[in-house]
Amino acid sequence: MDQDEQAIRALIATWMEASAAGDLPRVLALMDDDVVFLGPGRPPMRKDGFAATSRAMEGRTRFEGSADVQEIRVAGEWAYCWNQLSVTNRPLDGGAPTHLSGPVLSVFRKKPDGAWVIYRDANMITLEGRS
Amino acid sequence: MDQDEQAIRALIATWMEASAAGDLPRVLALMDDDVVFLGPGRPPMRKDGFAATSRAMEGRTRFEGSADVQEIRVAGEWAYCWNQLSVTNRPLDGGAPTHLSGPVLSVFRKKPDGAWVIYRDANMITLEGRS
Repeated sequence: MDQDEQAIRALIATWMEASAAGDLPRVLALMDDDVVFLGPGRPPMRKDGFAATSRAMEGRTRFEGSADVQEIRVAGEWAYCWNQLSVTNRPLDGGAPTHLSGPVLSVFRKKPDGAWVIYRDANMITLEGRS
Repeated sequence: MDQDEQAIRALIATWMEASAAGDLPRVLALMDDDVVFLGPGRPPMRKDGFAATSRAMEGRTRFEGSADVQEIRVAGEWAYCWNQLSVTNRPLDGGAPTHLSGPVLSVFRKKPDGAWVIYRDANMITLEGRS
């Protein structure tokens, strides 16, 4: 596995950890300033929208997720990754957890300093049911 | 606009035309043999699955779509495109048409013969309502 692919796998692992820890500054550092998040049934969301949505959820739910990397392909300063994502959100008020799963197709770019960041993200996870 | 971006825009236009015309062989020629179609709430679909699904719909509905290209970025033999797609399906039995819209994030590759083809496709269009 080449160094760029390793770096992108590490980025994804850090993303999952930082999200689970509710560490928003660390999550934001993993994305480009011009990032766009796409999803079904909602308008495209940029970095400020992501931050606002995350802050609105702070202290309300605990996020546990796992990303099963299907494919990473690097082309120079650009790369894409297809993940199968599985997420559980546990409301901190004791409410029933929700489970979501599905594919995510992400585009990454390598910044001039050599760090990879998320640039485009197509999140297709859907609700599985409550338990 | 560079030649590769022009070729990808032409591919998208051809895709929409061939889909509207119900010309499945022409649609299939625009995708890689190893293409994967991703979407919310359904398993990843490959070329044979796409063909089977399309054949099952043949003669049952008329497809009218428009693709509003938001961004195309080429990196060597690879490229991605973010589209905002709008689709109307008109049942040929006179039933009410359905409207779907939303983003699509696609990865393209340039084959050794210079032709661009769809390689990965994250389709996030959702039902808007009936009219």
